[in-house]
Amino acid sequence: MSFIKNWLRADIQDINAYHVPPALDMIKMDAMESPFSLPDEMIKQYLSYLANVELNRYPVPDSQELKRTLRDLMDIEDELGILLGNGSDELIQILALACKSGDTILSIEPSFVMYDIIAKFTRINYKNVQLDDNFEIDIDSTIHAIKKYNPKLIFIAYPNNPTGNSFSRSHIIDIINTASEALVVLDEAYYAYADDSFLKDVANFPNLVLLRTVSKIGFAGLRLGLLIGDKGTVEQLDKLRLPYNINSLTQVSARFLLQHKNEINNNANTIIEQRTYLTDALTNINGLLVYPSQANFLLFQAPNADNLFENLKDNGILIKNLSNVPRLTNCLRVTVGSVEQNRQFIEVVRSYYG
Amino acid sequence: MSFIKNWLRADIQDINAYHVPPALDMIKMDAMESPFSLPDEMIKQYLSYLANVELNRYPVPDSQELKRTLRDLMDIEDELGILLGNGSDELIQILALACKSGDTILSIEPSFVMYDIIAKFTRINYKNVQLDDNFEIDIDSTIHAIKKYNPKLIFIAYPNNPTGNSFSRSHIIDIINTASEALVVLDEAYYAYADDSFLKDVANFPNLVLLRTVSKIGFAGLRLGLLIGDKGTVEQLDKLRLPYNINSLTQVSARFLLQHKNEINNNANTIIEQRTYLTDALTNINGLLVYPSQANFLLFQAPNADNLFENLKDNGILIKNLSNVPRLTNCLRVTVGSVEQNRQFIEVVRSYYG
Repeated sequence: MSFIKNWLRADIQDINAYHVPPALDMIKMDAMESPFSLPDEMIKQYLSYLANVELNRYPVPDSQELKRTLRDLMDIEDELGILLGNGSDELIQILALACKSGDTILSIEPSFVMYDIIAKFTRINYKNVQLDDNFEIDIDSTIHAIKKYNPKLIFIAYPNNPTGNSFSRSHIIDIINTASEALVVLDEAYYAYADDSFLKDVANFPNLVLLRTVSKIGFAGLRLGLLIGDKGTVEQLDKLRLPYNINSLTQVSARFLLQHKNEINNNANTIIEQRTYLTDALTNINGLLVYPSQANFLLFQAPNADNLFENLKDNGILIKNLSNVPRLTNCLRVTVGSVEQNRQFIEVVRSYYG
Repeated sequence: MSFIKNWLRADIQDINAYHVPPALDMIKMDAMESPFSLPDEMIKQYLSYLANVELNRYPVPDSQELKRTLRDLMDIEDELGILLGNGSDELIQILALACKSGDTILSIEPSFVMYDIIAKFTRINYKNVQLDDNFEIDIDSTIHAIKKYNPKLIFIAYPNNPTGNSFSRSHIIDIINTASEALVVLDEAYYAYADDSFLKDVANFPNLVLLRTVSKIGFAGLRLGLLIGDKGTVEQLDKLRLPYNINSLTQVSARFLLQHKNEINNNANTIIEQRTYLTDALTNINGLLVYPSQANFLLFQAPNADNLFENLKDNGILIKNLSNVPRLTNCLRVTVGSVEQNRQFIEVVRSYYG
């Protein structure tokens, strides 16, 4: 028997390593990435900034200038604190590490899988409440679960992944008020595509923090996430951040790239328009059920979803097959792509069912 | 009372946030950084690589090409596995998360402070064994501590920071053999400046892994660390790595920059020569005690160390003041700089004591 089999805790050994399927030369509509690449003119300027990075020196430890840029981009008030991570994942892990042994994380399901996975990594209990049949929060069950499990952290993706919808604002407020001893973490990864946000509410609820990321607005390659919360809260959570976690290239690149607010907002508006196009086109195909989306992707239920998924792949289009996920039988998730990508996608789906 | 004061575990609240002193325009000889910046010609080529990074896409998940580059740079056999982290810190945290609640990390002291800090972050016990008066491993005490605490992980920096020396090879082998149920982690951050390494030994000891980093060889800004170990061990530890942890800019930059093996090795040789210059020059100053170093820094004991430290700062030179660290009374640590920086540093120290 190998050393590691004896050494490593069994619940980690039991995890199947997460394999990202290679996209090869396919049209990628699987990972909530933005289809827009940088304009050539912006690349030139951007590289001239990077030329001045002193790579032999450690990064700026607190990324202050980058935080300023993020405040401007996302209209974050100076009164709130910002904590940066390598993707939201690192921030979820910092929150989980802030818990004591024996504490519990509560989330709703189906939702983003990393809440559960990171609870396991950090040896914290994980409990979930199921969404109702419309993927809306079942407020009675949720309040019941809060009272039963007394969670330390509650993660809710708003809008939700993989269902795409936002939840009732009043349900969220009920949860924040009921779970007054828990930190409620609203994961607003898809904020740029949503009608609503709790950004203006953070100052009113001491037990509320938000997560955001630049991954869905054109910069997945940067792996930059942020937590927004009360300044005192952020100051304490910051103690759990590993030193110099945001490297110099990310800091300098993000500072330059994220100041192009108009470009970023215009791209988001194009995606929202295209989301309408995709929703309408899919809804018009007989037998498909399209769920309402506030994000840059659509969840839809399709007869023989596995086959459609494979057929799309054979036609060079990669989407996400969720049909084996509990509650998501025959469901597929497609990320909104460029005008041309969306057109090609619809064409393949139409001819599959036509 | 604020929400976070009630919510956050007390041992984290008690941590004093780690403040990196601003270096302003000082000569930085405090952080084991390389003094060498990139040649202009290399920057041009490097930027042309970066121009092709698709920032709207997620990074390559397993960083395979970058691992190939690191194998070539560090002569890592194909039989060994490599795990990448945002600095060694992320890898230390992955190792600590692999432990069960109630497990113990053992390290020697004085050593790198993050072993202790990350044990606290991850809610694992931390025990230490003191080095002897020459900063060599006290093998009897260490064997005793292994039997007493039955540690799950043993961290040893080889060469050690902040003392600069490497330990007796046979002591390390005794530890690996005695602690056969522990994973022994040799942190070879300073490998480029040392006469010895355990790289060739990893294949012979199933409970041995190495940590390395590119921070001390010219690329602190990249925050790139690696764990080298048995393939099966790395495959299991990899399950605890957060997805896409190494961003696209780091992957592409490091692949290009780290292929310049001759340049990197020549720079390391210059540092080793300059280490000899600094050692000799400091030793010749009356009252100074210089510890032997296998790293890119020197630890030395100096009368009125606090005053000398301030005097250096007044003269525009920042080094590290360790005189308040247990066992290091009146000790300062200076990173080997460029020929000119080292000359200036020696001049200030000489005139201070002259």
